[in-house]
Amino acid sequence: MFELQDLIARITPLDVASIELARARQLQLTKPAGSLGRLEDIAVQLAGVTRNAMPEIQRRAVVVMAADHGVTAEGVSAFPKDVTPQMVLNFLTGGAAINVLARQADAAVTVVDIGVDADLQHPQLLSRKVRSGTANMAQEAAMSRQEALQAIGIGVEVLERLASEGLDLVATGEMGIGNTTAASAITACLLNVPAKDVTGRGTGIDDQQLANKVRIIERAIAQNNPDIDQPLDVLAKVGGLEIAGLVGVILAAAARRIPVVLDGFISSAAGLVAYALCPTVKDYLLAGHLSVELGHRLILEKLGLEPLLNLHLRLGEGTGAVLAMHIIEGALRTHREMSTFAEAGVSDKA
Amino acid sequence: MFELQDLIARITPLDVASIELARARQLQLTKPAGSLGRLEDIAVQLAGVTRNAMPEIQRRAVVVMAADHGVTAEGVSAFPKDVTPQMVLNFLTGGAAINVLARQADAAVTVVDIGVDADLQHPQLLSRKVRSGTANMAQEAAMSRQEALQAIGIGVEVLERLASEGLDLVATGEMGIGNTTAASAITACLLNVPAKDVTGRGTGIDDQQLANKVRIIERAIAQNNPDIDQPLDVLAKVGGLEIAGLVGVILAAAARRIPVVLDGFISSAAGLVAYALCPTVKDYLLAGHLSVELGHRLILEKLGLEPLLNLHLRLGEGTGAVLAMHIIEGALRTHREMSTFAEAGVSDKA
Repeated sequence: MFELQDLIARITPLDVASIELARARQLQLTKPAGSLGRLEDIAVQLAGVTRNAMPEIQRRAVVVMAADHGVTAEGVSAFPKDVTPQMVLNFLTGGAAINVLARQADAAVTVVDIGVDADLQHPQLLSRKVRSGTANMAQEAAMSRQEALQAIGIGVEVLERLASEGLDLVATGEMGIGNTTAASAITACLLNVPAKDVTGRGTGIDDQQLANKVRIIERAIAQNNPDIDQPLDVLAKVGGLEIAGLVGVILAAAARRIPVVLDGFISSAAGLVAYALCPTVKDYLLAGHLSVELGHRLILEKLGLEPLLNLHLRLGEGTGAVLAMHIIEGALRTHREMSTFAEAGVSDKA
Repeated sequence: MFELQDLIARITPLDVASIELARARQLQLTKPAGSLGRLEDIAVQLAGVTRNAMPEIQRRAVVVMAADHGVTAEGVSAFPKDVTPQMVLNFLTGGAAINVLARQADAAVTVVDIGVDADLQHPQLLSRKVRSGTANMAQEAAMSRQEALQAIGIGVEVLERLASEGLDLVATGEMGIGNTTAASAITACLLNVPAKDVTGRGTGIDDQQLANKVRIIERAIAQNNPDIDQPLDVLAKVGGLEIAGLVGVILAAAARRIPVVLDGFISSAAGLVAYALCPTVKDYLLAGHLSVELGHRLILEKLGLEPLLNLHLRLGEGTGAVLAMHIIEGALRTHREMSTFAEAGVSDKA
């Protein structure tokens, strides 16, 4: 088992010298200062992340962690639990939205069964089942602390494997019927806000189902009473296996100075856990998009992240994160490839 | 000279049958209904635009219209007028932001000198100078009605030329020191709002310069007294040659059922003129991004367009529009390439 504290100790602040060089270059490019807005910020941030004033992204990947949630027994989702393994197979045969968008972004898709409640076999599937879905958190802890740590370790392993093959940018993705319920519960605990403020319609439940979902989350928190100052306790008691796996991906990427694009609410709940474990992590994160899920905005505010896209997505899988890779690529290309005022013979400000 | 009324008569409503087919397909794809948000809307819109329920974009282009503005004599811009021809040469040698982002989006860049106040020669430049910059609109009409029509006609010619080579999506771009002043004046007239509500800092003027810019726009409108119910009169008296050219590009694209991605404030002022001439045009438009320029939001509200990106860009050139092409591509790819529930053996809602 990996040592969480050792991993966290390897996450260090951004490189100030590279940031300064990148800022200076932005001021020399043939455009009014600041006129490329967020693109300029991204280039500067990634200079600090990669310790390279001229950062470049060649190899992209999206990690899709899949798991089931015992809490679906409480009727929190619009879709039946069977959809988790069905969608995993859809990912593996290339027919899901994440496959299409990853092909467009030239990102490799790694699908991990970290806790699907079904027997899944496929040559492209990374089988790392910690358990067959979490327990029903409305009645007991979703998983043990040991299982949560094991799932984080799997995320670390997956990231290390990708990094050993070469990786410049990673997106977080997930699949798990019921996982907005877990994400809402984590968010309510770690932001210390009422469940109703961070609970949305997930894949599409109605008003009555939404009211039930809020009650179930309240009951899960009351029943398990997680220590909100202990992110691992929160993750284990009211979280999910795929969320824990993504915590590992995020921490390991930051430790390797690889930037991470968060997808929507569930991915960002993993980002919130990682941040609670190690606040420096946030400097390695980009928010791919703003989901319509209520809690997402609150997490991003807490992490100080401004979403790159706002397209009313609520699919997950990593779709918004992978779509945002084009923006990140544009930021780095303009930074590297644009002419300077001197090179182009263009007058700087009068 | 082309006949504006004939062109407008060729702009017809979107194809309802293709829209219905595209909507039905979206409901069959392996995702919760509506979960791809704006991507779904784009696919449906472009089905209606192209009369094809499975729209595809192969050939992309951005038209960059460049012209000067006599009103720069009034100190409305942070950059000297010489920057217009300097940046045109930068476009032609591939060093500007639009070149970099167009390469990334696989969009061809067409640069048109429709009124730069300098002698420009380059094998890749389309030289269509109507006049060497507009007159100073603070003192007299920026151009004659005849010149405005001529500039629109050039936009039509450019679009027809691109369409004859094959064109599936066109972005509008521009370069012209002083052109936010013209865009603000047009917007103030056509939306019938005070100049101060639609005037921003352009390439980066300070508070005092901004106050001066507002006064100059107010003076230009008072001096020329354009008929705000006559878009051509507004365009000629307080507009710009590159804006007029883009009006032609937009109208001609809509007439050929080619979708148009608007860039920022200046491009959208052209969109507003086109809309005032023919309201049906708006169905053919997508808003690439939301500029920080004040007037842009008001135009998009008027046109009923929601921007695809909000990255605090204020560069123009077509940069935001070309960057948004990746989103549009993602919308069409998911629409065409995702598996249906039946194909993937995934359960639809319980």
